[in-house]
Amino acid sequence: MGSSRVVFDRLQGRYAQRMEGMRSSAVRDLFAAASRPDVISLSGGMPEVSRVPAHTAADAAFRAVAHHGGQALQYGGSEGRVELRQTIVELMAETGVRVRPEDIVITAGAQQALDLLGKIFLDPGDVVIAEGPTYLGALQAFSAYGPEIRCVDMDECGMRMDLLEAELKRLGRGGAKFIYTIPNFQNPGGVTLAPERRRRLIELSREYDIPVIEDDPYGRLRFEGGHIKPLRALDDDVIYLGTFSKIFAPGLRLGWVTAPHPVLAKLLIAKQAADLCGSAFAQVTAEQYFGGSRWRKVLQGLTRTYAERRDAMLAALEQHFPPEARWTCPEGGFFLWVELPEFLDTHVLLAEAVERGVTFVPGDAFYPDRRGGNCMRLAFCYAEPERIEEGIRRLAEVLEDRLELYRAFIAAGALSVKKEEVV
Amino acid sequence: MGSSRVVFDRLQGRYAQRMEGMRSSAVRDLFAAASRPDVISLSGGMPEVSRVPAHTAADAAFRAVAHHGGQALQYGGSEGRVELRQTIVELMAETGVRVRPEDIVITAGAQQALDLLGKIFLDPGDVVIAEGPTYLGALQAFSAYGPEIRCVDMDECGMRMDLLEAELKRLGRGGAKFIYTIPNFQNPGGVTLAPERRRRLIELSREYDIPVIEDDPYGRLRFEGGHIKPLRALDDDVIYLGTFSKIFAPGLRLGWVTAPHPVLAKLLIAKQAADLCGSAFAQVTAEQYFGGSRWRKVLQGLTRTYAERRDAMLAALEQHFPPEARWTCPEGGFFLWVELPEFLDTHVLLAEAVERGVTFVPGDAFYPDRRGGNCMRLAFCYAEPERIEEGIRRLAEVLEDRLELYRAFIAAGALSVKKEEVV
Repeated sequence: MGSSRVVFDRLQGRYAQRMEGMRSSAVRDLFAAASRPDVISLSGGMPEVSRVPAHTAADAAFRAVAHHGGQALQYGGSEGRVELRQTIVELMAETGVRVRPEDIVITAGAQQALDLLGKIFLDPGDVVIAEGPTYLGALQAFSAYGPEIRCVDMDECGMRMDLLEAELKRLGRGGAKFIYTIPNFQNPGGVTLAPERRRRLIELSREYDIPVIEDDPYGRLRFEGGHIKPLRALDDDVIYLGTFSKIFAPGLRLGWVTAPHPVLAKLLIAKQAADLCGSAFAQVTAEQYFGGSRWRKVLQGLTRTYAERRDAMLAALEQHFPPEARWTCPEGGFFLWVELPEFLDTHVLLAEAVERGVTFVPGDAFYPDRRGGNCMRLAFCYAEPERIEEGIRRLAEVLEDRLELYRAFIAAGALSVKKEEVV
Repeated sequence: MGSSRVVFDRLQGRYAQRMEGMRSSAVRDLFAAASRPDVISLSGGMPEVSRVPAHTAADAAFRAVAHHGGQALQYGGSEGRVELRQTIVELMAETGVRVRPEDIVITAGAQQALDLLGKIFLDPGDVVIAEGPTYLGALQAFSAYGPEIRCVDMDECGMRMDLLEAELKRLGRGGAKFIYTIPNFQNPGGVTLAPERRRRLIELSREYDIPVIEDDPYGRLRFEGGHIKPLRALDDDVIYLGTFSKIFAPGLRLGWVTAPHPVLAKLLIAKQAADLCGSAFAQVTAEQYFGGSRWRKVLQGLTRTYAERRDAMLAALEQHFPPEARWTCPEGGFFLWVELPEFLDTHVLLAEAVERGVTFVPGDAFYPDRRGGNCMRLAFCYAEPERIEEGIRRLAEVLEDRLELYRAFIAAGALSVKKEEVV
């Protein structure tokens, strides 16, 4: 909370056990630093909402209330408005998925869907499988329900199916509650699950009787290469999460989930308990916005913007980053992933980076088990290309300072470098 | 979900244990029936949003995006916008409570605050104390975390402090996680906690070291009698929940919680996991709306409207309801509570009432333990006075049919009537 005074907690020891496993998001905690105008943010996954024409959006909001106030201002059904669910049906059809409005529940961003899925599926000790690294908001949402989250490594084609199969074999049939995956432009990895691996993932899910949760916030933000159909297009049992945060605006907090009806029925009960129903005001506004045709141009413009920024980041990394660093080359989305020599601790680097006016997210935030300490997630979605170039340059300076010492060790003939000697 | 086909649940037995304790809301399930135009709804607590001038609200929404789009459309801090928290500071000051913006977290309606408080405080088996009957949304929210909810009876002055004290004595110091209360125009009881009982409640809370959660959605909708200061005005440690749903519009899903900072810190972690942050779009719209002065007139008009409807309901009850029925006379809010002879089952009555075109909520929905089966909650907030009169008349007919049999038993000299003989 605003003040950083240490406050005596009269209720210490009176909170639920689950709070011991729940931590504040590293990204959220960076917001304060990132809002200083001299600091270049390569940390948060904030869309470039300035590219959404304010008048078009404002007009949608005005019409929502002026023409549909009786509904926009009122409570609504917990499953969300059928009109917006119809819009979602059409949006999903464009990505190759056929669903009906009754297969959809609207949520407060995809984040709420993650929380509700955790709530309906997870008892303490249950196993969840996810990519490693994975979306930290999913780690936060699930961890409230005390599962053991097992991470499967990725390569440039996404989650490795050989490793997934080995894990499933260890766990046995039905041995995990679900497999959580972000197939497109993964957050934070930046890689995309190849088509043949998508088919294999579905096969394994069936063979081991473990449901798949497909989280697809970035699927429509592809810069190059052909569209790859979602997992949900391969199997109706896949639980699919979508969001309006990246194709319209996160400020509306609108997402959705499609799932088999028995799962949706449980989800609705959990949603009633969580917030009664979603915002009809936001839903009608989105209906108005997607009722026009301008959104397609806006989305194309947004995608172009992000592509330019990715290009700027890749070029700057190539130019400034040391040869010891490796990074992914995403074909879309918001993020890329940098791996540094093992002895580097990106938390230490972050403190120095903030002093030089640039932020990123340390890699261990994206693992349930503190792995990834030598990695970082870089967001190219939010800063202008020149700022990205400057940010990467500043970051490279921080790295260079650290690496000099390392190289000196090597030059002096040290066979191996222990972390504690350098950091 | 829309279709009522029975669907085979492939995942039967794979859900979290907590789902066994979670049920769909009886009120929500009535929505379908209540939306038939021939049915008079005395069930849902829906505000009369048609009294909120559509143009004023639409204008607020337009300005939110047109002038503040960069913020309204973007992600925001999990605690909510400081501008809206400042508005809340001023609203609360008018009710006699002094807080600062940093004492407030914005939530998705007060319902989300209930869910988050359950999440941070409750382990399975923990004890929660509430009024009996109590708000069914609170029962839903808390029950997701497996507590034992103990109900304390009310009389016309609210929760009975002698019974509360006896319960606290049984439980011992720190023996419950919190006391949940709706002091003003209680939902569903319609009664208001008297000032001297408020002081006593705070004394008991301190003596037994058990925090108080004060839920105050209706406090500003008083028809008669003087304003009574909230519990939060008597003790800074009280966790206070407010909402914009009744003073502006539920469609925005905006509520708030004020609490000691250590509680807010936990709450924020839970909120990040639940939905990252609230809707900035809705928040800026509310700031615009409350930035003007028109809302005061609108709120006065709304309160007058509800007062007229309460009067209509009380008059109709007096005129049509049988002498065996008793009901409360609320000084504000949305609801009153009817008690019928013990052998009547209001679930059975509801089925007949829906056939005659009127809905209410059976009383047992408001107890954790299936008590209240001979009671009903009537909402006077939503239907026009003539419709209320007609609804009560229809309901009285249903009652009369049931009671005739009862009276015949009595006339025949039956000393006692067993439920199974009549219903």
